Amino acid sequence: MRNIRMAISYDGTTYYGFQTQPIGNTVQDVLEDAIRGLTGEQVDITASGRTDAGVHARRQVINFETSSPIPVDRWALALNSRLPDDIIVLQADEADPSFHASYYAKRKTYRYGIDTSKFGDVFDRKYRLHYPMPLRLKEMKEALAHVVGKHDFTSFASRRSTKPSHVRTILDARIEEREGKLDIFLTGNGFLYNMVRIIVGTLLWVGEGKLSPDDFKRILEARDRTAAGPTAMAHGLMLWDVEYED
Amino acid sequence: MRNIRMAISYDGTTYYGFQTQPIGNTVQDVLEDAIRGLTGEQVDITASGRTDAGVHARRQVINFETSSPIPVDRWALALNSRLPDDIIVLQADEADPSFHASYYAKRKTYRYGIDTSKFGDVFDRKYRLHYPMPLRLKEMKEALAHVVGKHDFTSFASRRSTKPSHVRTILDARIEEREGKLDIFLTGNGFLYNMVRIIVGTLLWVGEGKLSPDDFKRILEARDRTAAGPTAMAHGLMLWDVEYED
Repeated sequence: MRNIRMAISYDGTTYYGFQTQPIGNTVQDVLEDAIRGLTGEQVDITASGRTDAGVHARRQVINFETSSPIPVDRWALALNSRLPDDIIVLQADEADPSFHASYYAKRKTYRYGIDTSKFGDVFDRKYRLHYPMPLRLKEMKEALAHVVGKHDFTSFASRRSTKPSHVRTILDARIEEREGKLDIFLTGNGFLYNMVRIIVGTLLWVGEGKLSPDDFKRILEARDRTAAGPTAMAHGLMLWDVEYED
Repeated sequence: MRNIRMAISYDGTTYYGFQTQPIGNTVQDVLEDAIRGLTGEQVDITASGRTDAGVHARRQVINFETSSPIPVDRWALALNSRLPDDIIVLQADEADPSFHASYYAKRKTYRYGIDTSKFGDVFDRKYRLHYPMPLRLKEMKEALAHVVGKHDFTSFASRRSTKPSHVRTILDARIEEREGKLDIFLTGNGFLYNMVRIIVGTLLWVGEGKLSPDDFKRILEARDRTAAGPTAMAHGLMLWDVEYED
């Protein structure tokens, strides 16, 4: 069996998330259908991590085993011709048999996009949260800096999280602003269920002046989901990149 | 009667162009329906110019007469709440009774977007032509410079053009390139039917080396549509801005 690794990109707007669900219409289903159409084989795709319904991926990494003899440099073109236009294979190669897209992911970066313009940019409406408020950027940056490092992120995890530990390490957190659009980037060794979206929801309260940067720090330290703000909408979130040790 | 002027923005993907057609589903129809819902009046919208099926507008200007007493600062919000999410009213004001969005437009700028990446950027797929070829940017810029000035643009006009004169003045033409994405901007006092798209289609042949910049110049001078390249696809085209004399 060969272990094929792929980098893919998708517009999550119409999908019920990455991972196969009983309800159907997931990115994984569509990819596995395209691979079956190409190879005749039903493969089982592993991703670096799931993305929720409506969440996008600029660069997601997946792998699967196959006995197909199709040369590795043909996979991307052959699958792209079978995939709908909202899922794209960027790259394919043959990985070491031990490679596993989830276990070996060392760092992931997410971007959360916000559009603060009065009525919203029509061309970005599916990729940014429209939040037409004046936001205190300096305070937001100060608050966000508190998530960098190793912390118990229980306050910023969905109560549906089933992970035994909520300790994660955030390696980098930053906000870029340009013409009323904010990009919030978070890089970490792992993320809990809804973690980026709850951090952003809470950060928006800081931006509006409902919370101070110190309040944000106290919320993180409280390890209590009820202390934090709301879960920001899915469509502003994008898996930006996944990194592996070479 | 009041003369209301609006700046609007729309994603043209699902529309049969700006102007009302027997086939229906145009931007004008949807706007007029929203205005009728708000005011009870059937108005007749004039735009700075039509856009074709699938063409977008970052900033289009329209006007219409109404006897509605709704204050001008309420129009944008009230209409946006009635419009689908792919049409946005950016701004509304009350214009001089003589203002006419088409007659008084002095300059228009169009942008044509091209994505030269191998498999395309999934988030730009509706707004850029995917053209995965190495393009000779220097030659394209040299060719494009020939359109600046006053010329007879018959070579770059659809044969369905019914205009008595094909002489137009292009005030500015430039190409910006960033990470494999090209933006071709054209500013002029007026544009013929399909003019930007035929200029771009011909320019792409220069980019591929099928034509030289001098060939491009000769095509312009030939005043013959059959001499030029193909009409580039609609979805890469965006009405960027419309300017009026104050």
